[in-house]
Amino acid sequence: MTDPQTKPLRVALAGLGTVGAGVIRLLKDNGTLVADRAGRPIQIVSVCARDRSLDRGVDLSGFVWEDDMTQMAERGDVDVVVELVGGSDGPALTLARNAIAAGKGLVTANKAMIAHHGLELAEAAEGRGCALKFEAAVAGGIPVIKGLREGAAANAIERIYGILNGTANYILSTMEASGADFSDTLADAQRLGYAEADPAFDVEGTDAAHKLAILAAIAFGGKVDFDAVACEGISRVRAADIAQADALGYVIRLIGMADVDEVDGAEPALLQEVKPCLVPKGHPLAHVTGATNAVVAEGNYSGRLLFQGAGAGDGPTASAVVADLIDIARGEVGAPFSVPASQLKPMARAETGGRTGQTYIRFTVTDRPGVLAEITAAMRDADVSIESLIQQGRANNGGEVLVAMVTHDGPERCVARAVELLRDSDSLTAPPLVMKIIRD
Amino acid sequence: MTDPQTKPLRVALAGLGTVGAGVIRLLKDNGTLVADRAGRPIQIVSVCARDRSLDRGVDLSGFVWEDDMTQMAERGDVDVVVELVGGSDGPALTLARNAIAAGKGLVTANKAMIAHHGLELAEAAEGRGCALKFEAAVAGGIPVIKGLREGAAANAIERIYGILNGTANYILSTMEASGADFSDTLADAQRLGYAEADPAFDVEGTDAAHKLAILAAIAFGGKVDFDAVACEGISRVRAADIAQADALGYVIRLIGMADVDEVDGAEPALLQEVKPCLVPKGHPLAHVTGATNAVVAEGNYSGRLLFQGAGAGDGPTASAVVADLIDIARGEVGAPFSVPASQLKPMARAETGGRTGQTYIRFTVTDRPGVLAEITAAMRDADVSIESLIQQGRANNGGEVLVAMVTHDGPERCVARAVELLRDSDSLTAPPLVMKIIRD
Repeated sequence: MTDPQTKPLRVALAGLGTVGAGVIRLLKDNGTLVADRAGRPIQIVSVCARDRSLDRGVDLSGFVWEDDMTQMAERGDVDVVVELVGGSDGPALTLARNAIAAGKGLVTANKAMIAHHGLELAEAAEGRGCALKFEAAVAGGIPVIKGLREGAAANAIERIYGILNGTANYILSTMEASGADFSDTLADAQRLGYAEADPAFDVEGTDAAHKLAILAAIAFGGKVDFDAVACEGISRVRAADIAQADALGYVIRLIGMADVDEVDGAEPALLQEVKPCLVPKGHPLAHVTGATNAVVAEGNYSGRLLFQGAGAGDGPTASAVVADLIDIARGEVGAPFSVPASQLKPMARAETGGRTGQTYIRFTVTDRPGVLAEITAAMRDADVSIESLIQQGRANNGGEVLVAMVTHDGPERCVARAVELLRDSDSLTAPPLVMKIIRD
Repeated sequence: MTDPQTKPLRVALAGLGTVGAGVIRLLKDNGTLVADRAGRPIQIVSVCARDRSLDRGVDLSGFVWEDDMTQMAERGDVDVVVELVGGSDGPALTLARNAIAAGKGLVTANKAMIAHHGLELAEAAEGRGCALKFEAAVAGGIPVIKGLREGAAANAIERIYGILNGTANYILSTMEASGADFSDTLADAQRLGYAEADPAFDVEGTDAAHKLAILAAIAFGGKVDFDAVACEGISRVRAADIAQADALGYVIRLIGMADVDEVDGAEPALLQEVKPCLVPKGHPLAHVTGATNAVVAEGNYSGRLLFQGAGAGDGPTASAVVADLIDIARGEVGAPFSVPASQLKPMARAETGGRTGQTYIRFTVTDRPGVLAEITAAMRDADVSIESLIQQGRANNGGEVLVAMVTHDGPERCVARAVELLRDSDSLTAPPLVMKIIRD
């Protein structure tokens, strides 16, 4: 008789892109070690993808090929479904729902699906007593969900923030090193395979926002609320901004950040933002270059924790997927969002601009007398106190010049008001770029 | 009838120093949140320490005071014993053995005890089916044991290394910032409370070696072998070495490092070293200053993972202790060293000097003709190829000068041979300081 504790964990794998092939390779290369650590073998029994004929560089002959992906959940010989198909809805979501309804564990790398439907899936999984795990959905190979959900579980999290998109970070840190502008750097990144042909998802912040919404739910015990993420990408960041930040002691990073306002008598209000920010050179996130991801969690007892590593790629993502499978094989199920889904609180949305801090503001203006007076008057009228102001020498494109300033510590809403006061000004050739300065 | 799943996890707390008081404070401040995440309350029922009359700044009136610590394990109203007494043997070990023998979970921050007796305790705990957890024993509040044991569980770990002692890192990074020498900086650190009156345990590397031996066992699946750690402290590092390293693009850090030689046909050989090393300024560990700890794990699929945070202090350490308690409350027991203790392999000791790489060597010599020729001849005779060599201007202490060099990539054993050749030289006023250069 086989001890059920040592029976293989049987896996159906849906989606055979680079990550799916990575999972197959990993379980082949590290299979013995994985079985030793999991206490039993982890065995793929069935696979499925759109195109059966494609050569993926891995041997599929040992697995049952399933033509209808959504049927994988029905297989009696499967304990866990791994969903690597992608897309927030459609076949991925159908498969996820079916798998949980059939009482199977579900492991997914699908950040869009979890950001949009994570609460529904967690409720269903908890109702059925089966596992729902998505370590690979946030920050690739970095065990940050585990770090938050378990490692930092004893803490009230005061703030969580980090570099959540490798493409955007690659572009910003390359601009930093080369002095080139955004569009040239993006084109290079596309040629080198660091950016997609349609880069909007990465450079406009949507991908980071998916990850942030998931992290925020775990950190603050709120229902996942992707629509509440205020999102701004990096396409308006210029080489001149990076040079200016450098001169002031900062680098520019696309930062996803969440924290909570706790005001007596009011319900807690969650702020979630993905925006380019100025990061002091002494801060650990300032040293994160290339496609690397990094997440900082500030706990009321742990202090500042940093988790850093490869945020994407077949190897790191497969590492996270199989870590989830090992947890399941070890019998560690638990609530996907740390507290039971039914206890996740609806969170009010914190007022954007409700924070205080220093801000970098860059104006592009026509080079004519009185422009500086107009800008500084708006700052005065909005109660924004200026720490430093630099007007850059005349540019060569039709008399446009840059005016960059750093404010003293003050309410962000005052900065927003100043920008609003200048909205209809003829002097500005484009809307100002406003970036928060992260505290050291 | 109470659901056993929601019954409190009842804790006996032995040791009421700063960490013990921190655990009491944490469970008071974050108790509701901890109960929500753990699925049930975590409740201290009994406490014990040497001196009952001491004011620890926390209210002990709700707990049963136990005079005989080793009796805590016998209490029928306790599920888990938290051992914060310290010391590798003595009462701490007796308590740990008793607790496990009585079928209770054990949570400890005691790195010395785990480094020396972890294997015995793990075997006992696994035999009884009870939990043994020691996240707080390594790198304070950073969930690096969880990160390795679970987060990176799908990987063959190729190398694990990091900054494992906050005091040593505080001293080195302060020397770096101030240009002061070791002894003055140590004295300052002692005055500020960053170093103990007897600093040997921290600055000579023993504390880091305890932590390294624990990490290495988990990473490589070997029996904990503290005695095999080659250990060298930072007391011989001079301000001149730091200045020299800086000019060459490096900082100096006390690094604990472990990796494994896998040679066909031979049993795997584990190298464990705690030594001051040169770290390239572009490496994430170069930016770790002050009392912060950081651990890098290089997995064959995950790539380089970095875990960073506060390596000591009551808050961070209490955070790790309570994270372990939450795991236990959630029913997550598991093998303490990732694989069952009975499967941990005895590891051969890798030959010190069996690695290749670049090395920094600093000689203190008497300032007379022919010294450089003598040193460079020894290098030549030992097959050490020199990349750069700097002789520093005459010092004011009796004609002693420093000669620093960086070798080309080559076997470390050749460097050791060169140093051996120079051992009886009258020209050297002290043994050379040899430091490995970490690859970027």
